[in-house]
Amino acid sequence: MPKAEFLFDFGSPNAYLAHRVLPEIEARTGVRFDYTPVLLGGLFKLTGNQAPMLAFANIPNKLAYEMLELRRFVERHKIAFQMNPFFPVNTLLLMRGAVAAELDGVLPAYAEAGFHHMWEAPKKMDDPAVWAEAMASSGLDAERLLARTKDDDVKAKLLANTEAAAKRGAFGIPTFYVDDEIYFGKNTLREVEDALTA
Amino acid sequence: MPKAEFLFDFGSPNAYLAHRVLPEIEARTGVRFDYTPVLLGGLFKLTGNQAPMLAFANIPNKLAYEMLELRRFVERHKIAFQMNPFFPVNTLLLMRGAVAAELDGVLPAYAEAGFHHMWEAPKKMDDPAVWAEAMASSGLDAERLLARTKDDDVKAKLLANTEAAAKRGAFGIPTFYVDDEIYFGKNTLREVEDALTA
Repeated sequence: MPKAEFLFDFGSPNAYLAHRVLPEIEARTGVRFDYTPVLLGGLFKLTGNQAPMLAFANIPNKLAYEMLELRRFVERHKIAFQMNPFFPVNTLLLMRGAVAAELDGVLPAYAEAGFHHMWEAPKKMDDPAVWAEAMASSGLDAERLLARTKDDDVKAKLLANTEAAAKRGAFGIPTFYVDDEIYFGKNTLREVEDALTA
Repeated sequence: MPKAEFLFDFGSPNAYLAHRVLPEIEARTGVRFDYTPVLLGGLFKLTGNQAPMLAFANIPNKLAYEMLELRRFVERHKIAFQMNPFFPVNTLLLMRGAVAAELDGVLPAYAEAGFHHMWEAPKKMDDPAVWAEAMASSGLDAERLLARTKDDDVKAKLLANTEAAAKRGAFGIPTFYVDDEIYFGKNTLREVEDALTA
């Protein structure tokens, strides 16, 4: 069975949209995706890339197309989605929390909570108090996770994930791997599914 | 029946790859694509965009992914493809020739010839002598078409096509329209086909 991976950062609306579609692909293919927390801002710095909003700031047609294309994806898959009014949200706390959650064995619940509080019921998730209340409301041990985000092993693992992603060819989020084959962007999900069933 | 359009410039390898796949989509959907010649360099200037090779020059992972993704498309669709060693080729002559061919009712043959001599048996197609020999070898009236590329109505139509594309939201090539819905890039062809059969 092929190995499927999803490199994510909660700051990416397209990662959220992919997260909502992955369960359908998992159901059809029988393959589960491993979720790998990667700090998108760090990945941009390591690879010379930047956020689409910045890269396309002076190309209005391209910015408009990105939004159209996002709306089409949302409609096609009937996804609940709201732009986060605090965008861009600094995701360092959210992503360190993801690593802490992974080490505690609760990453699936944390990932669901993180995406929910960013893009379904959007909040200013770079505010630790807002973050803690949101995570607690989703049934997570916010106090423990918050403490863990300050530990060196958690910080180091997020950095290591991010450096490994850059080394492996990633330059943005969402990125998928099927074994060692890289796919960038939510619009490659059909290809990803093809590769999983090949 | 929906109206399908393909905005192309021979300078785009991805336009060539789309051109090779469109006949399959036409066969499956029963819809023919209208080919609209657009000067990519002009479209870039009008929209503030630039060629991927320039835009991603300092993002090596992204450049490498673009090439990987091109190779995967070529393999998936079993397309004959060679990078043009003279890339980037100035396509003003080629594109004015396309408008002249359209006005003469021979655009399908000209489009096939233009893509062939750029990406299957690549030549320096911005050299008028090379261009004329290539077009003649493909059965086109190169002498007449070359003369027509110097006429004001031909020049004006290419400019008008390009300005209309920018006004309509395009920012690159290949761009497709299904009625008034825009799709950018060869990787949207599955969506285009879905839209044609919706």
